[in-house]
Amino acid sequence: MRYLSEAVTSELVDEELALAAARSAFTSDGAVFPVVIGHTLTEGQRFTVKSGSTGTATGVKVGTYWHGNSELGLPRHGSTTLLLDPETGRLSAVIEAAAANAMRTAAADALAVQALARDDASTLTVVGTGTQAFYEAAAVARVRPIARVLISGRSEAKAAQLADRLSAHLSVPVTPTSIQAAVEAADVLVTVTTSREPLFNAEWVRPGTHVSAMGADGPGKQELPTALHARAALFCDVIEQTRTLGEFQHAPQHMPITPLRDVLRGDAPGRVIRDQVTIFDSSGFALQDLTLAEHILAAHTAREAT
Amino acid sequence: MRYLSEAVTSELVDEELALAAARSAFTSDGAVFPVVIGHTLTEGQRFTVKSGSTGTATGVKVGTYWHGNSELGLPRHGSTTLLLDPETGRLSAVIEAAAANAMRTAAADALAVQALARDDASTLTVVGTGTQAFYEAAAVARVRPIARVLISGRSEAKAAQLADRLSAHLSVPVTPTSIQAAVEAADVLVTVTTSREPLFNAEWVRPGTHVSAMGADGPGKQELPTALHARAALFCDVIEQTRTLGEFQHAPQHMPITPLRDVLRGDAPGRVIRDQVTIFDSSGFALQDLTLAEHILAAHTAREAT
Repeated sequence: MRYLSEAVTSELVDEELALAAARSAFTSDGAVFPVVIGHTLTEGQRFTVKSGSTGTATGVKVGTYWHGNSELGLPRHGSTTLLLDPETGRLSAVIEAAAANAMRTAAADALAVQALARDDASTLTVVGTGTQAFYEAAAVARVRPIARVLISGRSEAKAAQLADRLSAHLSVPVTPTSIQAAVEAADVLVTVTTSREPLFNAEWVRPGTHVSAMGADGPGKQELPTALHARAALFCDVIEQTRTLGEFQHAPQHMPITPLRDVLRGDAPGRVIRDQVTIFDSSGFALQDLTLAEHILAAHTAREAT
Repeated sequence: MRYLSEAVTSELVDEELALAAARSAFTSDGAVFPVVIGHTLTEGQRFTVKSGSTGTATGVKVGTYWHGNSELGLPRHGSTTLLLDPETGRLSAVIEAAAANAMRTAAADALAVQALARDDASTLTVVGTGTQAFYEAAAVARVRPIARVLISGRSEAKAAQLADRLSAHLSVPVTPTSIQAAVEAADVLVTVTTSREPLFNAEWVRPGTHVSAMGADGPGKQELPTALHARAALFCDVIEQTRTLGEFQHAPQHMPITPLRDVLRGDAPGRVIRDQVTIFDSSGFALQDLTLAEHILAAHTAREAT
C-alpha cells in the first residue's frame, strides 16, 4: 500500500499536473457513481464521497468540510483518495490531497474556459474571496491572455488580500471592484462562493461572456440568476450531478445541458457564436480525483527514481 | 495516519471482538448514508461504498468483490475502512479488514439470533457453503446451545469440506443434508448464498424457526420464498437498504419491518410467541464497519502497549 501524506502531495502538484489530470478525466472512458453527502452528528461537519472507475483506476475520494477547523488554524477542506488495485481490488494507495484538490477543481474550470471562452478574453472577474478563488484565477490565467482581474466579495479586507496575492502571482493588475462593475466588465466570470441565492443581476452580464460557476455543490445552493441560465448555452461536468447538486438544479428543465466531455472530445459544439453567453457548472466528479491521484503517484515515482 | 494491514487485523479480530463491535453498532446513535454500488469497466469487478458517522467515528468502508481473484489464489472479497479524525475531518486511519469483515457480518447475525431465536434452539441449518458460511455457523453457535449443524449446498464436495471444518471448530455433529430435510429440521436457519431466487419452499419451514438471510445485497437478489416473508415477523438492520438491496425488496410492501436496533434497545418487541417465524435480513451498514474499525484500533493499541 502506498501512502502519500498531504505534505508530500502538496509539493508534487502544480497547475500543469492538475490540468493534465483534468484533461485526462474529461476525455477518458469511465464510470461515475452517485455522490454521497454525509453529515456527522456534530453541526458544521460535512463530507462527500465520490467514487468511480476508469480503465486504469478505481477508487473513492472523501472530501471533508469541517467548519470549526478555522478556529484550530487548519483549512476547513480536506481530501483523501483511496485507490484499488485494478487486478485484485485490494487497497493500493491512499493519498491525502487537500491542496491538490483545490488545483484539481480549478483545472476543470480552466479546461472549460479553454474550450468555451472567447480566445481574446482578457478581463477575468472572480466573485468570491475564499481559498479556492486564488486557484481559480491562477488556472484561468494560464489558458487565456488575462490582462486584468477584478475581485468582488462581501469582505473588503479579504478582497484586498486576495488581490495582493493574485497580482504578485500573475503580474497583472488585480482590483477589488463592486459586484455590478466587476460583472459588467467580465470576459470570463468565475463564481466561487457558498451562496444559496443569485449573486448578481442577469442584465449585468455582457453578450459573449463565459461564466464558470464553481460554488454550487449541494441541494439549495445557487450562484447565478435563473434569467441568465435561460439565455445562455449550458455546459457541465456530470449531468445527473448538475441537475441535483449543482448550479443547474435551478435551470429550466427543458434546457439542454452539454457535458464538457463531449465538447473536448469533439462530439458536441462549444461556443457557436461570439456573442453567446456560455456557462460551465462544475460539481466535481470522481474521475478527476482518480486521474489526479494517478498523476500524483506517477510524479512521486519519477521523483523517487531521480 | 494509522495503517493496519490485512495481516495485522486478521490477527487482532476474533468472534468476541466482532460481537462487541456489532452490539455497539446496533445500539449506538449514528447516521448511515446511502450505499453506493459501483462496477469497474471490467466484468466481474464490483465494489460497494458504505459511509456513516457515530458520536466517535466517521468514515467509509469500501468492500470489493473481484471475481477473477480465485484464479490468482486470492479471496474474492476485500474490505478497507477509512476513518476520519472527529476533530478535524482529516484522515486518521486506514484499516484493511477482509477477514474481520466476515466476522463482522456473522456477528450481526449472531446478535439477531440472540435477540430473536428461541432460547432452546439447538439445530442450526446453513444453506450455502462459501467462506462466509463458516463464520455464520461459528458465530451463531456462540449464542445458542447448538447441538448439531446441517449443511445444504449445491456442491457436495464443498458441503463436505465445510462440515469437516465446522465440526472440528464446534465439536458438534455437522452433516451435509438435502435442502428439504435441512430446512425442515432447522431451529435456526441461515442462508448465505448469492441466489437470485428462493432457495426452498415456504412450507418446509417449521413454526418457531428463526431465519437469518445474509445473502441478498443487491437489486434482484433473493434467498427466501415470498410466502415465507408473508407469514413471518420481519427484522432488518437498515430499512431503506433491506427494501432496495436486501431480502425484503421482495416482501409485501404493507408488511412492517422492525429494525433490530429497536429490539436491542428495548424499543420494539422481538419474538412474541414461540411458534412465530422470525426473519432477520442483513444488508450490512456502515456503523458496523466504523465500530469494528474502532475496536480493532483499540485492540491494536492495547497489544502495542504490552
